Amino acid sequence: MTQRPALLIMQRHLAPLTAFLESQYDVYRFWEGPPREAEHDIQALVVAGEFPLDTHLVESLPNLRLIACFTSGYDGIDVDWCRARGLAVTHAPGVNHEDVADHALGLILAARRQIAAGDRALRAGGWTADSKLITPSMKGQRLGVVGLGAIGEAVARRGEAFRMQVGWWGPRDKEAPWPRAETLEALARDSDVLVVACRAEDDNRGLISREVIEALGPQGLLVNVARGQLVDETALIAALRDGRLGQAALDVFEDEPTDAARWAGVPNTVLTPHTGGATTEAVQGMLMLLMQNLAAAFAGEPLKTPVKTEARVQGLGARGEGQGMGQASKTGPRP
Amino acid sequence: MTQRPALLIMQRHLAPLTAFLESQYDVYRFWEGPPREAEHDIQALVVAGEFPLDTHLVESLPNLRLIACFTSGYDGIDVDWCRARGLAVTHAPGVNHEDVADHALGLILAARRQIAAGDRALRAGGWTADSKLITPSMKGQRLGVVGLGAIGEAVARRGEAFRMQVGWWGPRDKEAPWPRAETLEALARDSDVLVVACRAEDDNRGLISREVIEALGPQGLLVNVARGQLVDETALIAALRDGRLGQAALDVFEDEPTDAARWAGVPNTVLTPHTGGATTEAVQGMLMLLMQNLAAAFAGEPLKTPVKTEARVQGLGARGEGQGMGQASKTGPRP
Repeated sequence: MTQRPALLIMQRHLAPLTAFLESQYDVYRFWEGPPREAEHDIQALVVAGEFPLDTHLVESLPNLRLIACFTSGYDGIDVDWCRARGLAVTHAPGVNHEDVADHALGLILAARRQIAAGDRALRAGGWTADSKLITPSMKGQRLGVVGLGAIGEAVARRGEAFRMQVGWWGPRDKEAPWPRAETLEALARDSDVLVVACRAEDDNRGLISREVIEALGPQGLLVNVARGQLVDETALIAALRDGRLGQAALDVFEDEPTDAARWAGVPNTVLTPHTGGATTEAVQGMLMLLMQNLAAAFAGEPLKTPVKTEARVQGLGARGEGQGMGQASKTGPRP
Repeated sequence: MTQRPALLIMQRHLAPLTAFLESQYDVYRFWEGPPREAEHDIQALVVAGEFPLDTHLVESLPNLRLIACFTSGYDGIDVDWCRARGLAVTHAPGVNHEDVADHALGLILAARRQIAAGDRALRAGGWTADSKLITPSMKGQRLGVVGLGAIGEAVARRGEAFRMQVGWWGPRDKEAPWPRAETLEALARDSDVLVVACRAEDDNRGLISREVIEALGPQGLLVNVARGQLVDETALIAALRDGRLGQAALDVFEDEPTDAARWAGVPNTVLTPHTGGATTEAVQGMLMLLMQNLAAAFAGEPLKTPVKTEARVQGLGARGEGQGMGQASKTGPRP
């Protein structure tokens, strides 16, 4: 082992973290080649939680102790599998849910008030003296929120500022100022705008199915700021192409980065490159939690923000006291 | 004169009104050629208030009695000049200020959270595994509202829902929950986002001058949902080109429709074709007021929504009781 603990950063877009991490750790970067020479040194992986964890790699690192998610979400990681191998998992909860909600409203307005399409049309010379683009008022549009966790509540509150009429659905009831629909399909049927704001789990892949999409219908707008896997993307594209769904505004995709060619000719879409939670301020907050979790792990102290309260943190001489996430689990349904 | 009163619609984009107006009036359309044969029949003009009124035409119509603005704004019309000639002027106040405010927030989010640019980049294949677009959080951004009338207040309330810090300026102080800056330049200097929401008047052309634009600065975003003439557009474009201004999001322009070529290569802009107040619901409300004002004028009854309380409506056998606009004058500063 070297003097300083060694880390391995998994995703290329996390490369800017290197400068911060190198002040205290030896840093390896997966995309520069498998770190065979450091197999025995690497004690932590730094990952973006939306990407599937490479379990073969994990098993090839005998001294690995920690999977440190830079993000809030950790849906790419099988936490039970990690726990069974004595690996702790940390993440960055409670940092960017308001930013994600801001982005959701930006997507709703960009789609409903034709801001993205209007911008495109104007630049292409499509604004003429005899044309006038009329868009629907936000007032009274029915906003259906799927998953009333921290993000969903923040979306709902903002929707009210735009005079939208809020409803929601999640698998478990909870106290809320807005009515809960009996089923997801009922929510979609009774909504003009459906925002997916729930956590991605193993058992809710494709939650926004063809049936839900068709219930939302030819005038409806589907917004996804959660995870791509929650939506049956193939069904979504087909429904947009033949008008069974009105519009879609997506910040997340089945595969990321999504292939631009997949969306060529798919009408009535606004597409952003998973920027919802990626604000300067949120990234700073996530970096701080990452550094704190790494420091705690290597000092044998309690982790700052481990995943799941019930998970014992093994092999690090401490038990994780879940913050944020435990609270989110209580208040936020996980459809 | 014909049995039914005759109207002349001035702007092509108002052509869809024809179907409604023809149920009760003979309708002429200016762009189909000057209505020489009906010069003595035409008693009202139907106009979009942002376009300069053709005074030569007005003087060629001896029986003209009413200038009926379809819109809320009537900055293209010299009301005193009309009054001196016995012409009443009506408009459609209080119908779409909330829609305009919605659009302003849509523009702010589209620009700040890079929704329009992100959409363009993604479609062009610019989202790759090693790229990550980071945008500023809305939280704590300073929102400066120029003109705290109905639109300005609605913008300010929405800004608070996004955790922005609101300030404003108008030439006259008024009670408000937000601090008033001493000068427009001070507001610009102390704002991250400056939203132009005031009425256009003869004396505030170019209000957003080069000095104001530079005070807003290289990180600042200028949003205009009011009127193009309020902004020195040449200075704006120059400042965007050389980075003295950060971003601009514009729904209104010096000339409308604006020439797409004018904006080619001007960086960091979001441009929409004057759609802020043009919602389906607002257009219905404006149409209702138009029909009511026309009916009242030809029945010799008080006009529903004449411009300015102090203006006597001459030649129509009634005095206008200003609604909405008179109130707006009291509560809304007119910088």
